[in-house]
Amino acid sequence: MDTHAPHGVLAPLPAMDVAGRAPRLVERLAAAGCDALLVTTLVNIRYLTGFTGSAAMLLVGPDGLLLVTDGRYREQAAEQLAAAGVDADLHIELTAASQFQVLSDATTSLRLGLEAHAVTWADQRRMQRTHFPYVVELVATEDLVEELRLVKDDGEVARIGAAAAVASTALANTWTLLYERPTESDFGLALDSEIRRLGAEGNSFDTIVGSGPNGAKPHHRAAGSARTIEAGDLVVLDYGAVVDGYCSDMTRTVCIGEPSATQRRMLDVVAEAQAAGVAAVADGADTVAVDRACRDLVSEAGWADAFQHGTGHGVGLEIHEAPRVSWSAPGTLATGHVVTVEPGVYLPEHGGVRIEDTVVVTADGCRLLTHFTKEADPHRWPSPPTT
Amino acid sequence: MDTHAPHGVLAPLPAMDVAGRAPRLVERLAAAGCDALLVTTLVNIRYLTGFTGSAAMLLVGPDGLLLVTDGRYREQAAEQLAAAGVDADLHIELTAASQFQVLSDATTSLRLGLEAHAVTWADQRRMQRTHFPYVVELVATEDLVEELRLVKDDGEVARIGAAAAVASTALANTWTLLYERPTESDFGLALDSEIRRLGAEGNSFDTIVGSGPNGAKPHHRAAGSARTIEAGDLVVLDYGAVVDGYCSDMTRTVCIGEPSATQRRMLDVVAEAQAAGVAAVADGADTVAVDRACRDLVSEAGWADAFQHGTGHGVGLEIHEAPRVSWSAPGTLATGHVVTVEPGVYLPEHGGVRIEDTVVVTADGCRLLTHFTKEADPHRWPSPPTT
Repeated sequence: MDTHAPHGVLAPLPAMDVAGRAPRLVERLAAAGCDALLVTTLVNIRYLTGFTGSAAMLLVGPDGLLLVTDGRYREQAAEQLAAAGVDADLHIELTAASQFQVLSDATTSLRLGLEAHAVTWADQRRMQRTHFPYVVELVATEDLVEELRLVKDDGEVARIGAAAAVASTALANTWTLLYERPTESDFGLALDSEIRRLGAEGNSFDTIVGSGPNGAKPHHRAAGSARTIEAGDLVVLDYGAVVDGYCSDMTRTVCIGEPSATQRRMLDVVAEAQAAGVAAVADGADTVAVDRACRDLVSEAGWADAFQHGTGHGVGLEIHEAPRVSWSAPGTLATGHVVTVEPGVYLPEHGGVRIEDTVVVTADGCRLLTHFTKEADPHRWPSPPTT
Repeated sequence: MDTHAPHGVLAPLPAMDVAGRAPRLVERLAAAGCDALLVTTLVNIRYLTGFTGSAAMLLVGPDGLLLVTDGRYREQAAEQLAAAGVDADLHIELTAASQFQVLSDATTSLRLGLEAHAVTWADQRRMQRTHFPYVVELVATEDLVEELRLVKDDGEVARIGAAAAVASTALANTWTLLYERPTESDFGLALDSEIRRLGAEGNSFDTIVGSGPNGAKPHHRAAGSARTIEAGDLVVLDYGAVVDGYCSDMTRTVCIGEPSATQRRMLDVVAEAQAAGVAAVADGADTVAVDRACRDLVSEAGWADAFQHGTGHGVGLEIHEAPRVSWSAPGTLATGHVVTVEPGVYLPEHGGVRIEDTVVVTADGCRLLTHFTKEADPHRWPSPPTT
């Protein structure tokens, strides 16, 4: 493989048992009412096979795996399947018609599951009418692979942790620029470039740098924003890195100079709410209760209306995946789930405060994957690494 | 607006008539068998309203526009609708249930079109059963907004051209690094950072830097690749920028040092094929004929099997959009379409060559939007700008 970290903080990553995943999926097919599953979600194909191309379909059935992709990926698909130790029947087919023909031939007389949460209504209609004339039935399944992905193995947690370490080091190496009156765009670019220089594949999402009133827009993107970061600003920094496909996610809020009394209170309330949320995470915990642990403290401070998003979400191969941690999404956390805890308070006249960690759920609590001080004054941060 | 270019080559962009788009969509609804359309594709919502958030639904009907989004976007949605001059009824609703309630109330007794090419089968099933009990019928429409987006107005073409100018300048400002034995990842990062420094919002897709054997993988990504670029390498550089949401796309192939006889022939054949493809583009041209104009020259050179992808694709708010330019996608080009022309030859032992321009179709031909020499030896390039 020609993909290792060119610089920096990335230690060698432990191997993952990619080949062990599809058999666990096969065990779940009968309960979902199907004999085989046509996996069309690229990230699920990556999870099951190691293949990272931008176009493929994977048939998972009792006879094993059949991967169909196009001519662009002839070399890459063979290499990546071999690297992952995955035994799949690889077909290079140049047209959609010939790709579906291969799949149709392999699914005659089967009840074929589709990923109904990902297949479009139009594609399902075409598959029904045209592509799969010989299947017994197309079955609408939901989240069969995503349910496997919920519980991360040690190799996956190590990758999320490695991405988080790159992201933390990048902030430690760039924060002094915040005091040179950069635009939000320039500071975001510095952070993003440092993440790449340290060996990550890129950002796990568009970096958010929200200063002053822009911080009150919870998803204000840095890129293209010419607002200058000034003394007196709260600055919301929400960003992450990608290492070997896995995402990290962390938010810190800094204050340039002395915070006002209101800003100080916002910082304290959000920090307490965030700590309460993290403390509520454990195997068996109710996701609504974790959300409430954060939200009650924000509400008691009188800012219920200023925290209008959910408390967190799962993180893995995707930056947003199951489980959600929100008042509106009941569920139960389990060992190996990886979730964010990220309450915020947004007041346009004062700015925004959000603090977010990513944690992995353990039997009796959780373990932080984002190791970075929550102190709002960067001058009080520990000396930065300079890898 | 706080989003203008912080540096560089970006001239002020002409205004776009965003508000004029939805009325053209409404005119098409009856022929599609519906009274209103629920637009759920974010890029289509951006096209019709100017709103760029990551979660929204837009109802387009005879009574006007109704935009539903969540609390994260309360400020941003109002600002962006106003900036685009779009008159929409804006609803902030915090849960999916309340969002669908607003939409259901507004669509009683209507035939409601869904974007069947984008709505998942699972969502369609839930809408049918739960969310829209009072509509007459859910209608599967396809590509109604995408068909409007096919023909770019002057403001859109200006944005694609501005993105292409940033991308060209970035290569002119960074190419000397190719001779310092960078890794593919490092050169990609230099190019990407320069694109951001010059004022673009980011890359229009993950930058491809394919040197030596990696060039024979048409979609080899730069990020994370530690292969060092060496003398004798062909290097495929396929990348683009984003300006005000619009993408550019260009590929150039350079040779580090003197090409071998085979590499020289690959460069010449692909350049001729690419020029033939561009010459075939015009209002009324058959997309299959444009593909054939390129492919025939590659085939005559004996490399038919080494050009396994289509010749091009549309470019706009998305890096891949309609129309396709391929043997497998019959269609007719029209004035205002913006497409790429990008033949390639991939031979693992010699490397890869691809040359790609983005052009806008005119009545009697096309106009290049990617202005950059196709000379393979960077030392013969015109002196670089240094904006």
